Amino acid sequence: MESWITSIKALTVDVFGTVTDWHSTIIREGERIGSQKQISVDWGQFARVWRSGYEPAMGRVRRGELPWTKMDTLHRMILDDIMCDFPTLELSDEEREHFNRVWHRLDAWPDVVGGMLRLKSKYIVAALSNGNVSLLTNMAKHAGIPWDCILSAELARHYKTDKEVYETAAHLLSLDPHSILMVAAHNHDLEGARAVGFRTAFISRPLEWGPGGGADTARDDEFDIIAQDFHDLATQLGI
Amino acid sequence: MESWITSIKALTVDVFGTVTDWHSTIIREGERIGSQKQISVDWGQFARVWRSGYEPAMGRVRRGELPWTKMDTLHRMILDDIMCDFPTLELSDEEREHFNRVWHRLDAWPDVVGGMLRLKSKYIVAALSNGNVSLLTNMAKHAGIPWDCILSAELARHYKTDKEVYETAAHLLSLDPHSILMVAAHNHDLEGARAVGFRTAFISRPLEWGPGGGADTARDDEFDIIAQDFHDLATQLGI
Repeated sequence: MESWITSIKALTVDVFGTVTDWHSTIIREGERIGSQKQISVDWGQFARVWRSGYEPAMGRVRRGELPWTKMDTLHRMILDDIMCDFPTLELSDEEREHFNRVWHRLDAWPDVVGGMLRLKSKYIVAALSNGNVSLLTNMAKHAGIPWDCILSAELARHYKTDKEVYETAAHLLSLDPHSILMVAAHNHDLEGARAVGFRTAFISRPLEWGPGGGADTARDDEFDIIAQDFHDLATQLGI
Repeated sequence: MESWITSIKALTVDVFGTVTDWHSTIIREGERIGSQKQISVDWGQFARVWRSGYEPAMGRVRRGELPWTKMDTLHRMILDDIMCDFPTLELSDEEREHFNRVWHRLDAWPDVVGGMLRLKSKYIVAALSNGNVSLLTNMAKHAGIPWDCILSAELARHYKTDKEVYETAAHLLSLDPHSILMVAAHNHDLEGARAVGFRTAFISRPLEWGPGGGADTARDDEFDIIAQDFHDLATQLGI
């Protein structure tokens, strides 16, 4: 075990894609809607288009075109925007509001709960997501994710990968950034955390965007730890 | 069951005294120190004096004599201040720092974990304390308190009973104040929450300040619910 690992006190963990499988969950809920309405939609494509609206929407807030906005509201704006790309699908306002909350009902990848319970035996394990606090809280209840605490971009009023999000997390955990390990399936998130002094662990989620969807990969030497899943991460941390 | 109860979506719960027994835990850790140093201290009195410094210390922040300060730092300032009242007790800086973190190691009252698990089956159950986020997170791990999320005065940079703390909690939970039940063993906390529209549940903790210590009591008609403990609260909420 490398010596820097003995300094680690807490893990901050990305959520969408790293902990929860948005692609499969949206397909499953979409197929239920399609079956009720007797329409055919490529729900995998729908999920990817919805998720792809996420970075541009945060960009509008960063540029000041929108005030600070909860992720729930951004998700709804994107949903309304993409409906025209799926003309067979008609959803009432109430149906959209319900479907929008699919992000609260995402399922965890199968290794998450068991691996996280191992990690919690040694470390503080905190969510650190662009999702708003209530979204993350509802999701944790739905999926049984045993966070020690829920930290969110909402508490910094900045989205990742703005440095304020990582700095706020370190401040709230009362920890030096060097004693925090950022865990994510996304290179840019780990790079953002590293820029303020966090250690980094890449978790491989090859199916985040579905088969052949082009999930992030990382070279062996790119981050402090490259793990296959949360169990592998716990093992590499000596648990 | 009264009709307002059907509107409740989340419980925000006070921590020191309501969920955890600071008086007994400080006595227990103090007695260990006393035994190691072979000195005699009235640790019940010590605990009460330490806790009594809490409101005046927050008052200094409210009046602008101190900038926003984490509760950990206020606890340490008070500890340093009261040492002269206990002249037989000598603690090094390192010993003080360790003893100061007794607030992270408080034990829960015996009804808390079981009662809260019942409450969580129906509601979001969130901490809402003047303790800082890292203090509350460590305490939850120590005592096994199964919070859905940890909210803190630190997130509002105001202490209870300032209205900003309750307003921030409602905003982060994405809930109308009328759908939140504040749970506390302290009348002033419930009054503060009620002033911004929360419903209120008083939990009786007659031994918070030790036997004869003068814990808060509440009349039957003073708050929406008067409960003996967390199990009684769950029962009164129809769980």
